[in-house]
Amino acid sequence: MAAPAATSFYISTSSSSSAVYSSTKSLKPALSSNSGFLSTSSPSLKALKAKSHSYNVSRSGGALNVCMVAAPAAVKAPMSLDFETSVFKKEKVTLSGHDEYIVKGGRDLFKLLPDAFKGIKQIGVIGWGSQGPAQAQNLRDSLAEAKSDIVVKIGLRKGSRSFAEARAAGFTEENGTLGDLYETISGSDLVLLLISDAAQADNYEDVFSHMKPNSILGLSHGFLLGHLQSLDLDFPKNISVIAVCPKGMGPSVRRLYVQGKEINGAGINASFAVHQDIDGRATDVALGWSVSLGSPFTFATTLEQEYRSDIFGERGILLGAVHGIVESLFRRYTENGMSEELAYKNTVECITGNISRTISTKGMLALYNSLDAEGKKVFATAYSASYYPCMEILYECYEDVATGSEIRSVVLAGRRFSEKEGLPAFPMGKIDQTRMWKVGERVRATRPSGDLGPLYPFTAGVYVALMMAQIEVLRKKGHSYSEIINESVIESVDSLNPFMHARGVSFMVDNCSTTARLGSRKWAPRFDYNLTQQALVAVDNNLPINMDLMTNFVCDPVHEAIEVCARLRPTVDISVPADADFVRPELRQTVN
Amino acid sequence: MAAPAATSFYISTSSSSSAVYSSTKSLKPALSSNSGFLSTSSPSLKALKAKSHSYNVSRSGGALNVCMVAAPAAVKAPMSLDFETSVFKKEKVTLSGHDEYIVKGGRDLFKLLPDAFKGIKQIGVIGWGSQGPAQAQNLRDSLAEAKSDIVVKIGLRKGSRSFAEARAAGFTEENGTLGDLYETISGSDLVLLLISDAAQADNYEDVFSHMKPNSILGLSHGFLLGHLQSLDLDFPKNISVIAVCPKGMGPSVRRLYVQGKEINGAGINASFAVHQDIDGRATDVALGWSVSLGSPFTFATTLEQEYRSDIFGERGILLGAVHGIVESLFRRYTENGMSEELAYKNTVECITGNISRTISTKGMLALYNSLDAEGKKVFATAYSASYYPCMEILYECYEDVATGSEIRSVVLAGRRFSEKEGLPAFPMGKIDQTRMWKVGERVRATRPSGDLGPLYPFTAGVYVALMMAQIEVLRKKGHSYSEIINESVIESVDSLNPFMHARGVSFMVDNCSTTARLGSRKWAPRFDYNLTQQALVAVDNNLPINMDLMTNFVCDPVHEAIEVCARLRPTVDISVPADADFVRPELRQTVN
Repeated sequence: MAAPAATSFYISTSSSSSAVYSSTKSLKPALSSNSGFLSTSSPSLKALKAKSHSYNVSRSGGALNVCMVAAPAAVKAPMSLDFETSVFKKEKVTLSGHDEYIVKGGRDLFKLLPDAFKGIKQIGVIGWGSQGPAQAQNLRDSLAEAKSDIVVKIGLRKGSRSFAEARAAGFTEENGTLGDLYETISGSDLVLLLISDAAQADNYEDVFSHMKPNSILGLSHGFLLGHLQSLDLDFPKNISVIAVCPKGMGPSVRRLYVQGKEINGAGINASFAVHQDIDGRATDVALGWSVSLGSPFTFATTLEQEYRSDIFGERGILLGAVHGIVESLFRRYTENGMSEELAYKNTVECITGNISRTISTKGMLALYNSLDAEGKKVFATAYSASYYPCMEILYECYEDVATGSEIRSVVLAGRRFSEKEGLPAFPMGKIDQTRMWKVGERVRATRPSGDLGPLYPFTAGVYVALMMAQIEVLRKKGHSYSEIINESVIESVDSLNPFMHARGVSFMVDNCSTTARLGSRKWAPRFDYNLTQQALVAVDNNLPINMDLMTNFVCDPVHEAIEVCARLRPTVDISVPADADFVRPELRQTVN
Repeated sequence: MAAPAATSFYISTSSSSSAVYSSTKSLKPALSSNSGFLSTSSPSLKALKAKSHSYNVSRSGGALNVCMVAAPAAVKAPMSLDFETSVFKKEKVTLSGHDEYIVKGGRDLFKLLPDAFKGIKQIGVIGWGSQGPAQAQNLRDSLAEAKSDIVVKIGLRKGSRSFAEARAAGFTEENGTLGDLYETISGSDLVLLLISDAAQADNYEDVFSHMKPNSILGLSHGFLLGHLQSLDLDFPKNISVIAVCPKGMGPSVRRLYVQGKEINGAGINASFAVHQDIDGRATDVALGWSVSLGSPFTFATTLEQEYRSDIFGERGILLGAVHGIVESLFRRYTENGMSEELAYKNTVECITGNISRTISTKGMLALYNSLDAEGKKVFATAYSASYYPCMEILYECYEDVATGSEIRSVVLAGRRFSEKEGLPAFPMGKIDQTRMWKVGERVRATRPSGDLGPLYPFTAGVYVALMMAQIEVLRKKGHSYSEIINESVIESVDSLNPFMHARGVSFMVDNCSTTARLGSRKWAPRFDYNLTQQALVAVDNNLPINMDLMTNFVCDPVHEAIEVCARLRPTVDISVPADADFVRPELRQTVN
């Protein structure tokens, strides 16, 4: 059993009346529960913060040696990203006291697309990987509904095996919606460059040179900017450069769009950025693009903040960190005598099922509050021991991304996929052949339909600690709450985890974008090792719970901001049928 | 048990007659054994290479999908690094057919030091970490033996806790051999900058500004050049810049020097580089410095090749990779039912004891040849499955180092040791609290004196595959054989592994230079994961042995080159007494 031995202090809350107790000092019930969410403006909460203590426990070094934070981190104002649109309706949302501006989506807005896309006759969608098929089909369907005659044309490299896939999705040479990559670029007024990051890095010169003057380059990721920056380069000056970045992988973007046909716009939130606007059209084109994808809400960012949070996020809770966590916990649980099947359920199934669903619908505090007293103690033990070890790796990862090292590493890895300099080619390997993932196959094969797995408090404590640590790093690095919450919470529990629940974490790590997959392989082991060497050792040594950390968790203003964001999306949960036809060819082969 | 099930092909050699057999085609006994080393010029070996086949086995992807190399890799000529010395004797060595130039050391050469150090009145040794205490004491002792009046003075940051340590080693303010960091720099004609890499990165401007015009800056690592390059900077033009880089950590440099007093010069080989020579003295000063440290032989490199091979090497077989290997194998062995004690012996003890001693004294082929037929089969299975998975990570690591990403990462990590931007401080954590290292403590506590552990063929196969893969990466990246062999073989089996044998791998990972420790923490998990996900899965799936790889191993010209290098050092093995007084303060505390 992985549960820790008795610890001195824990936070006990019940669903009707949440309170923080310590065995030495009883703090009067101070947290009033409000549908699982707590108001941070409550005076009693402030009193609670003021009363909380820093326990100077003896710690073994490393991440557990970090400075204690005695109160919830002082939050500096995130960058303000305002914008003007003449087509859509800009709205203000207040997240944790900060005003941010968004555009809500919905199928009733498709009629505005011709106006938003003024001057655009053809949209070239370049590439057929994760985002390509999803965005191309959503765009086509949305424009058809708007009775627009804008052509959505797929551009692929000659000889690409994806031609057959695109044809199967209804894009054909005959009707002018499928063609050669560079011909498609030359003939398009808006070019959505959705080839892999490594391919962008290797081919951007040809892409730029084929673009029409005054056309618009659309990216779904800031990666290319990061790459150009590392080479001291910039985009050509005679085109506009925009980005719409769905906060979920392509298959989710498509799946929720299809599901959302019934309920006016279920989908994946997206950020948008205008990096270069040569004629004033850029913002509305970007917003039109986002609305046509089905984004429930679209928030503003910069290409730079986007690639930082995105590349970081997929190495963190979206893929890399969650992979590292379950490897570490599965090993611990089995070493402590738990059966393999139960250990799998108490790690992977628990995170991708129960925990994700609860956070998605009710938030992190509700997850904690749903535990009984013993469960809360276990959660707090795990949270307290894991928070800083998770943050240590996240922090390192963020800085490696921000300084360009991670982007360079991805580009180099792409080049090692082929033989060079006398050294052999190293295509990316699979991770799903190890013991744990074989167990996972068995567990999923016998799982009752709709089963969300157990709620294992120790796993929940580690996972939520990771989520809170990621939020804190992004916050301190100046990201907007919209970006933070989409990247750290919504994308995880609404887009990726349900797919993982259907097919296992390893399946996702083997099937996301190349950049994400490379990053996950690189960072998952780091989270695993740091948890194993720091957090689990601390638990085994019965280090007391860090009460400040638990107080900060309960009082963090992010919970309220998450609640605001959650209200902005239609309440439809993604469903992932095993025979889904919207996924990438590679995904499909595994199913058939 | 980790031994694989029956495999189809293996190489069988006996000590009297080595031969390669395959079950489908009997290749006549072709390898003549010669004291454990094989001559690569043998015509029969060439015939063997020509006959070897590539087995197109079905592989599961990743590193096991690499292109097969049908013959030993064609070796491009390493860079030629010639130099002129008017004080010492330059000698030519031929390594695998390539001429390289070296200077042999020896205590009989100390009398040449005054000539080599002409114009130098004071040598400032800055810092008291790993190299500082060793080099300062060796230099002082050597100069004393040469009856030189050159002062060796330690320079430390005000308030440093190392003052007491330096005093205990006989350096005092009273006799002018201990003082403030910048005062010592200003007063020295040769400044050996032996503070940590991160400290160099943060303080180089102050260091440069305090140096006398026409003085000489001595480095023991090319790191600072890498850092300056990443900032588009260079060294000041009014000083010479040289490097002497012992291929072993400070405690080994001191320990072997002390042991070598009896036998004329046992020590650690070193590379030297002249990066900037403003008055023609640089080469002889560097060689004098190296001879005074006790280097058995000194070979030429560039600062750039040095930092690449050095930072890479410590992330590879010296620390990071060996840590990852033993974690992976210990877990495998125990999961397969082996007792914890035996699993520890069959991983850590085996590598740091038996395997290291055998490679150090007789080479890798002799290690292989010492196994019986079943042992050889197990070795070949492990080698064959591990070679490319190890190479994949090594290759990535090399390129991250060469492009500056790894150096930037180290600098950033150093800055995270302190609180900044509202995020807490993350000092480096320990890794020795996990199950495996607790077992190690028990094993070492009951180990008979002189015991070198078992020779477990599976572990040997993985370890040698790692060593050969590292050699191959460095070779393809154009490093000299002297550098390759010192960095990949000698430093490992003669300097680091004996220390690890005395105190455990985790002890080393916790106690080397900050750059090495950070790198080991970063890369060990990568080796562990890649081995677990690729190599061990391949073994479990009974993939056939890659006979080409085994042929290449047996025929590799590096074995002959290693033999030449081995003849250049006095045959003294480092001994590591538990109460050794030459180690860093941190090491000592653990012992006392």
